[in-house]
Amino acid sequence: MKVIETPIQVRYQETDMMGVVYHANYLVWFELGRTAFIEGLGFKYAEIENRGVVSPVIDATISFKNPVRYGEDARVRTWVEEYDGLRVTYGYEVVHKDNEVAVSGQTKHVIVKKDNFRPVSIRRSFPEWHEAYVQAMEPQ
Amino acid sequence: MKVIETPIQVRYQETDMMGVVYHANYLVWFELGRTAFIEGLGFKYAEIENRGVVSPVIDATISFKNPVRYGEDARVRTWVEEYDGLRVTYGYEVVHKDNEVAVSGQTKHVIVKKDNFRPVSIRRSFPEWHEAYVQAMEPQ
Amino acid sequence: MKVIETPIQVRYQETDMMGVVYHANYLVWFELGRTAFIEGLGFKYAEIENRGVVSPVIDATISFKNPVRYGEDARVRTWVEEYDGLRVTYGYEVVHKDNEVAVSGQTKHVIVKKDNFRPVSIRRSFPEWHEAYVQAMEPQ
Amino acid sequence: MKVIETPIQVRYQETDMMGVVYHANYLVWFELGRTAFIEGLGFKYAEIENRGVVSPVIDATISFKNPVRYGEDARVRTWVEEYDGLRVTYGYEVVHKDNEVAVSGQTKHVIVKKDNFRPVSIRRSFPEWHEAYVQAMEPQ
Repeated sequence: MKVIETPIQVRYQETDMMGVVYHANYLVWFELGRTAFIEGLGFKYAEIENRGVVSPVIDATISFKNPVRYGEDARVRTWVEEYDGLRVTYGYEVVHKDNEVAVSGQTKHVIVKKDNFRPVSIRRSFPEWHEAYVQAMEPQ
Repeated sequence: MKVIETPIQVRYQETDMMGVVYHANYLVWFELGRTAFIEGLGFKYAEIENRGVVSPVIDATISFKNPVRYGEDARVRTWVEEYDGLRVTYGYEVVHKDNEVAVSGQTKHVIVKKDNFRPVSIRRSFPEWHEAYVQAMEPQ
Repeated sequence: MKVIETPIQVRYQETDMMGVVYHANYLVWFELGRTAFIEGLGFKYAEIENRGVVSPVIDATISFKNPVRYGEDARVRTWVEEYDGLRVTYGYEVVHKDNEVAVSGQTKHVIVKKDNFRPVSIRRSFPEWHEAYVQAMEPQ
Repeated sequence: MKVIETPIQVRYQETDMMGVVYHANYLVWFELGRTAFIEGLGFKYAEIENRGVVSPVIDATISFKNPVRYGEDARVRTWVEEYDGLRVTYGYEVVHKDNEVAVSGQTKHVIVKKDNFRPVSIRRSFPEWHEAYVQAMEPQ
């Protein structure tokens, strides 16, 4: 299984008065992991949208183990957990410098047409992405 | 079961280039619903922190049914889904003007000491909140 | 001069580890003030965009006097400071409960076509907004 | 004069329904430039706060020339524009790939005690930072 690891620079703006990263921001870090993962497959998300489709999140789960603080070196690891030709579920782990897991989660996505949000089959409409997702789930 | 409904004014800043509210922002709206719910119980979250504790999220799940757009009148409904004296799970529904559900989700919280993030029993340390949570789950 | 005052509910998400509202968020509050001001003129910003134009900020200045904290009742006051038929400069004051000024600032806007960002004359293309801006600057 | 240049990865979350980066986010990018600049001086902002002080913004100006879009390679250039022993004014330019200026601005900062927000003289209390700021303004 392909796993891509991306360094995260904690922004002061991302902290809250609890002194740690505000919980919703980990979903943004998942976005950064997903972007890096897609680039690791040889695509760019920005180009995907140029083809008239967008890829909204339809489900997300997040488990917060222990918080990341400003000044820390964090990383997000991203992989494909499930894929059925229509829906992609990414898995994520945000880890501290010592590899301890700070936050883990999943986001499930579909591809829809930009103008009417109607679902599109990845397998049929974007066979090169389909192939890349299938390969990303195989032992590397 | 007590359910509190709060109007949400969609901010332009909350939209993304997909033309809809960026998915992580619904967690912020859940925060607004939770704040209103806690006030509905007769407390203020800001005062909770004055007592040396904070209430981080330990788990979150979100299901995105159809997006909210700028200019729309949305509302968030909040209730207590589970409570065991230590952990509170809030349930949420973001609804459109016509009551159609846009987003639903849960967040699970604990109370921890502000300085060392050690868990605190709500039942023992904050009996008035304990009582309020128990009552909020009963038929109203 | 027309001045519109809007209550602001401080979001936990808007605070940072300094324990106060993160400075960039006051620009978002200015957006809320501006939206309320435009509604006070009888328009809705969301409908402006339906006419194929958007209204980007071209200049902003912000002066931070003393910070707003979570749990406080803040308000933003908005008015039109300058208007020449092409460019609108809004003035803002974020005030504490006791009317002390927390933050003040200005944002200057133009109207441009959504698809190519070319400037549009408000006076010629949107005479009803032109009239409203001119009246908003007069003694009320 | 010392100038530090930092690459910026545009986040989808930073865009708005205008299809470009939401204006307040450039202040966050200025924060990233400032952080890199301070590291270029041999310090870390996170460690500054460990010494019981914080460095809030007291004034900001931003001029938006043309917007940055998702998928672009942007960079922020940061330097010290003014420094008098008490207040530091940073200058910034966000540039596109072809060096065209997208956004320019300044932020003025003081150092204050974390617990009471009372101002602290950089020159007297932090002579090593003072020395670094003075040198950063000299021809390199």
